[in-house]
Amino acid sequence: MLIKRLAIVGAGLIGGSFSLALKRAGCVGRVVGVGRSPANLAQALELGIIDEIGTDFASALHGADFVLVATPVRQMQSLFASLAPHLSPDAVVTDAGSTKQDVIAAARAALGARIARFVPGHPIAGREKSGAAAAQAELYRERNVVLTPLAENAHEDVERVSAAWRACGARVVQMDAAVHDGVFAAVSHLPHMLAYALVDDIAARDNAQTLFSFAAGGFRDFTRIASSSPEMWRDIALGNRDALLEEIDRFRDKLAQLRALVAQGDAAALEKMMSDARDARDAWLARSTGASQSSPE
Amino acid sequence: MLIKRLAIVGAGLIGGSFSLALKRAGCVGRVVGVGRSPANLAQALELGIIDEIGTDFASALHGADFVLVATPVRQMQSLFASLAPHLSPDAVVTDAGSTKQDVIAAARAALGARIARFVPGHPIAGREKSGAAAAQAELYRERNVVLTPLAENAHEDVERVSAAWRACGARVVQMDAAVHDGVFAAVSHLPHMLAYALVDDIAARDNAQTLFSFAAGGFRDFTRIASSSPEMWRDIALGNRDALLEEIDRFRDKLAQLRALVAQGDAAALEKMMSDARDARDAWLARSTGASQSSPE
Repeated sequence: MLIKRLAIVGAGLIGGSFSLALKRAGCVGRVVGVGRSPANLAQALELGIIDEIGTDFASALHGADFVLVATPVRQMQSLFASLAPHLSPDAVVTDAGSTKQDVIAAARAALGARIARFVPGHPIAGREKSGAAAAQAELYRERNVVLTPLAENAHEDVERVSAAWRACGARVVQMDAAVHDGVFAAVSHLPHMLAYALVDDIAARDNAQTLFSFAAGGFRDFTRIASSSPEMWRDIALGNRDALLEEIDRFRDKLAQLRALVAQGDAAALEKMMSDARDARDAWLARSTGASQSSPE
Repeated sequence: MLIKRLAIVGAGLIGGSFSLALKRAGCVGRVVGVGRSPANLAQALELGIIDEIGTDFASALHGADFVLVATPVRQMQSLFASLAPHLSPDAVVTDAGSTKQDVIAAARAALGARIARFVPGHPIAGREKSGAAAAQAELYRERNVVLTPLAENAHEDVERVSAAWRACGARVVQMDAAVHDGVFAAVSHLPHMLAYALVDDIAARDNAQTLFSFAAGGFRDFTRIASSSPEMWRDIALGNRDALLEEIDRFRDKLAQLRALVAQGDAAALEKMMSDARDARDAWLARSTGASQSSPE
């Protein structure tokens, strides 16, 4: 058995889907869930996502050989501090945070000597829905999971975490934490900010109802990620602040360029920009067919 | 029969779907297609979208009592000028352009005394695919079609155009042309520009391949509209320039506000903005279920 006792801190969409996938694969013995919402934990129990509700870290972590922390990233430091004293000697700890440098700093600050057993991770999968009720055993199938191992990590711990994600059907890739944060600031964090900003701006207008009543399918898909968890995305924005600010500034400059083309009536340059974008997107889709059909990450 | 002979100028996604829907409804006698691409017209003929290919305006428009111009908006002025001399006395003319003030100005300049028979329109439906092969009889079902009638229009002409769109399954609403252009600058034209700008910016980077390889479902949906026709969207951006520039400036300011919240680490204000956006979007979706399941407009 790959995992004898799995402790999930945050039994929501991400943690719950991890448990369901491992159970389906027959790779986990018993699953205990820990979280701040008794209602969510009760639902996770009822749905068979967890086998027991952990009422305190001491009992929940007793005998747990694998711990997944899957909460909004800014909660992680205090959670790491709470669980550190109760970790079993054979426990490996990983996380599912969308930002890595800040989570690693939090883990270093809170886990002390146990830092070597912490293997940072980020599954590139998700949905705009959250909570245990949204969990799916298939969520990670053919998705990427990025691990950003620490210099202190033992090879066998990195391998155990990789094996667990592979058992969920995912592809595991390793990456430097700073590179990770830069990549996801560009392809994930910035788009979320743009979608939230657009919807919030429209919602605040006097004629918001009229505007929404004529919004169609393009608007719906463009803004789907604005239905994602505000708490989770607040934490990501603050956790990856420097890289995100860089992307916002870059996009501001790009938008200023586009504005100038429109203002000058430069039809040729405008069409070239749009054609280049369409061609790049279509080429990406052609390459990634089957690999990018998930919902927001 | 609502329409005896329908002439479609631009037998692509929009014009082709109009024809297919009217044929299915039994509301049209014969359909002639006119366009610049012989290959597309041949395909439209083969798919039963049109019954004949019009080789010149004189013969195509002979006896046509309904003319739909469904091309990129900046082609319309010269097309209006070409078709004006050949219009039958009983012909009503409408268009499917996404911008209305510029199309009306083009029609006034080109149609001369026939302007009273031109009823401007905009079906709020579409797909990111284009051409006759993408046409669907169901494209307009439960979609909005906005008409922006002219002071010169006879009530019966407006009613004929409305009846044709209703026969396609659409809801017809009337609106002032300037109001129309402002509304769609906000909920359609700006999002398209943001999506094109984001993809183009990423595609131009040295590490574009790495970035795309980690883009997931959120990115895919956010950028779907960046696969739309560059020619069509170039024309919309230039045709609705003033309203679009206003929206770009507004969004630039909103993004600067969001940037400040991130830079200052204002977690509460950031979460409020995201929550407001999510709530507004979810409320919109709840209101519009069944009314906004199309693709881009």
